[in-house]
Amino acid sequence: MHILISNDDGYLAQGINALANALAQHAKVSVVCPDKNRSAASNSLTLDMPLRATLCDNGFVRVDGTPTDCVHLAITGLLEHEPDMVFAGINHGANLGDDVLYSGTVAAATEGRFLGLPAVAISLVGSDPKHFDTAAEVAVTLMRKIQAYPLPQDTLLNVNVPDLPLDQIKGLLSTRLGQRHKAEAVIRTNDPRGHTIYWVGPPGCEQDAGPGTDFDAIRNGYVSITPLQLDLTRYDRMEGLREWLALET
Amino acid sequence: MHILISNDDGYLAQGINALANALAQHAKVSVVCPDKNRSAASNSLTLDMPLRATLCDNGFVRVDGTPTDCVHLAITGLLEHEPDMVFAGINHGANLGDDVLYSGTVAAATEGRFLGLPAVAISLVGSDPKHFDTAAEVAVTLMRKIQAYPLPQDTLLNVNVPDLPLDQIKGLLSTRLGQRHKAEAVIRTNDPRGHTIYWVGPPGCEQDAGPGTDFDAIRNGYVSITPLQLDLTRYDRMEGLREWLALET
Amino acid sequence: MHILISNDDGYLAQGINALANALAQHAKVSVVCPDKNRSAASNSLTLDMPLRATLCDNGFVRVDGTPTDCVHLAITGLLEHEPDMVFAGINHGANLGDDVLYSGTVAAATEGRFLGLPAVAISLVGSDPKHFDTAAEVAVTLMRKIQAYPLPQDTLLNVNVPDLPLDQIKGLLSTRLGQRHKAEAVIRTNDPRGHTIYWVGPPGCEQDAGPGTDFDAIRNGYVSITPLQLDLTRYDRMEGLREWLALET
Amino acid sequence: MHILISNDDGYLAQGINALANALAQHAKVSVVCPDKNRSAASNSLTLDMPLRATLCDNGFVRVDGTPTDCVHLAITGLLEHEPDMVFAGINHGANLGDDVLYSGTVAAATEGRFLGLPAVAISLVGSDPKHFDTAAEVAVTLMRKIQAYPLPQDTLLNVNVPDLPLDQIKGLLSTRLGQRHKAEAVIRTNDPRGHTIYWVGPPGCEQDAGPGTDFDAIRNGYVSITPLQLDLTRYDRMEGLREWLALET
Repeated sequence: MHILISNDDGYLAQGINALANALAQHAKVSVVCPDKNRSAASNSLTLDMPLRATLCDNGFVRVDGTPTDCVHLAITGLLEHEPDMVFAGINHGANLGDDVLYSGTVAAATEGRFLGLPAVAISLVGSDPKHFDTAAEVAVTLMRKIQAYPLPQDTLLNVNVPDLPLDQIKGLLSTRLGQRHKAEAVIRTNDPRGHTIYWVGPPGCEQDAGPGTDFDAIRNGYVSITPLQLDLTRYDRMEGLREWLALET
Repeated sequence: MHILISNDDGYLAQGINALANALAQHAKVSVVCPDKNRSAASNSLTLDMPLRATLCDNGFVRVDGTPTDCVHLAITGLLEHEPDMVFAGINHGANLGDDVLYSGTVAAATEGRFLGLPAVAISLVGSDPKHFDTAAEVAVTLMRKIQAYPLPQDTLLNVNVPDLPLDQIKGLLSTRLGQRHKAEAVIRTNDPRGHTIYWVGPPGCEQDAGPGTDFDAIRNGYVSITPLQLDLTRYDRMEGLREWLALET
Repeated sequence: MHILISNDDGYLAQGINALANALAQHAKVSVVCPDKNRSAASNSLTLDMPLRATLCDNGFVRVDGTPTDCVHLAITGLLEHEPDMVFAGINHGANLGDDVLYSGTVAAATEGRFLGLPAVAISLVGSDPKHFDTAAEVAVTLMRKIQAYPLPQDTLLNVNVPDLPLDQIKGLLSTRLGQRHKAEAVIRTNDPRGHTIYWVGPPGCEQDAGPGTDFDAIRNGYVSITPLQLDLTRYDRMEGLREWLALET
Repeated sequence: MHILISNDDGYLAQGINALANALAQHAKVSVVCPDKNRSAASNSLTLDMPLRATLCDNGFVRVDGTPTDCVHLAITGLLEHEPDMVFAGINHGANLGDDVLYSGTVAAATEGRFLGLPAVAISLVGSDPKHFDTAAEVAVTLMRKIQAYPLPQDTLLNVNVPDLPLDQIKGLLSTRLGQRHKAEAVIRTNDPRGHTIYWVGPPGCEQDAGPGTDFDAIRNGYVSITPLQLDLTRYDRMEGLREWLALET
């Protein structure tokens, strides 16, 4: 068993170190991850500049690119042997509901799945979370399960873990993504030279967060596991679109 | 009718100028787009640095951020009046099949849809495409149709236009995304100082490109229109995942 | 006569357009400059990434690099014919006293001088200066003079022009660099996510700005012209250093 | 004695670790340096974006900015107590002759001197140098000497150390900067997508490298110490410039 590990918080983050240490006790691990924080990088891929990969003292390989770059680079050429699965994380903070669109952690897993491998994104909920050992233990459980019972090829798992000691976790739930309200307004301010600058505002609050959603699972002390798809086609709208296109204007 | 226009090729690109000129003949347009090429930026959002917006001579606003930043900024604070819909493009080159995961053009439309507006991403197929007027005409047609017959809220349109004169276009087809083969290997080489560098390789060839796909529509001279979803939950795997989680290891 | 023009405010700046237009009436000009504002770039040179050069509609070549990159690229390979001299500017704002250490405009001229060409950096004083035509006229005067009477090889000219109509300029003065007081403290604040950020503070006020300095010339309505050197050796300290090294500790 | 240490190779570089360890045995040290390689950054200062400072496990503070940013930030606000002197390095590779114009290491020392402190830039010669302990020992020697016998305020020291065991070093020489030949041509090539890219070429060979120069000292096994100046005015050309300006054209 050979596991590729990446993240979006960069190679110094506590989360990826906890994940690598835990999985390394059960499998060969290769860590290829960004050289700095690349949160909210989404599936951004670096096409117009070359990438550099540097071997760190602890055996990690850090890359001056996005999470997607790291996984892409690792699988399509950097690693001598192709890994058997990809784990991304442990993200410092939740990737719930609409967050997944922007998340670099989910993107790293997506790239793994897209390149043919089982893939898991794992995040520890909270603004300054502590229980990385809990999330690492969940990762080990999922790794073993995937080894025993393969996952469908067209699915990746988005896992969010409550920031609790392991013995307070109530279980693992299959969830759907909830939704947030529209994001808050941009914050307009001035730099010290008097020029206008804008900061992207905070994400919106939970809007659709009822039973069955990832938000609800976390709130109730469960690990939330959402199956995500790679194919963005909205199949159930194809027929409606056909009719719409035929309408006269 | 007030239309927000953005892209990922930057404010100097021929495509966004063609799109803005065409739509401006039928509606008020506001252009807010990157100050340079940000292709393959995906839904990347700039959270850790401020953004700057500059009014150009031609009335465009250029932003030193990603396509998602531009649309986010425009809708959540920069524009005095909220627009009625979002058009992204005209992208220089296709966004077919798996391309949509990485595309900054599709991401710009996604952000518009996510913030509550009808949204269309439009791309002109080809490595150095010429017929921007064709794609602009398609954009005008879709704008009018959306005005007359609203689109479902949870859907955005990914439009690809063959690089042909308008009178050679055979029609508009509702399609699903095809799939490419796995990407080519990274290209490993040296910089002039003897250090190893890596370039992300070209995308794979078409793999799933049969009837019904966007690839097939383009190949046959049709405009391909694929309904995309924002909710990445793979609903039809939720029950299977529930059972999988219950398996003993 | 063939003049290379660059700047640090980017190819859209009013200053470089005014300079190029004025010099083009008397010589062939080639403009190679940054694709965005690169103020305070100093002599920064891009060694670890490749550069891209794009021909703009107005004939300028914009480069995704620093001012030094632009001049280096132009002279060592991009231009078909080597230019006869280099003009950098017109900078939006002063480059007086210690500013020259950080200035990208001065650096562009330095690179030209370093690569063997007569070089002039020209700046228009003020926080939002208006009289670019005055500075452009000064540039034309200096270009003609250099053509008629060559400058010493190891000198470049740092020119600052008061923001006044041409007929209010009192003349051209040979000056030395003044000095500013120590810079103001960094500005410590928080980003909207509560993380500490720092902004470099404003430069200090004038400290050594008496008769003979560039500050004094400007204050009195003169164009200030300071001869700058490329060789940073402090020759008059070499002997003292020799003795210092021989001291016992 | 409190010493501020910075560099341009980034906080992970062997050189800065060797320097910090050696000086820490004789003084309090504060390390504030870039979070990644910023070679050839020159005196570049970040004015348009905020900086972030992160405390590392080993007590270093890493900053997402240039060497000049680091020293500026440290002295004008980050450090609780102002340091007594600044050491920059140990640079991996020489900073000889014209290199000093571009060097981030020299720039870090320059910023320290500019803000009022004795400052030393120290570099270990060679393309992959090994004897960091030699350079560290030279740094300790200079630190003690500056403590005992102050340096003139308007001078900083640019130190280059041969890559030799300490007992093979012949001594310390006061030198002037030599000169290189004009840089090699840019390297024009294509990226894998067929677009033209340019790499800055290698520096030129030694041109003025005779007795008295830094090049010559190194070649003969001596530590080269060049006094550098902050005031770029070429005083001995001021009178000539005055006459030149008076010439008729």
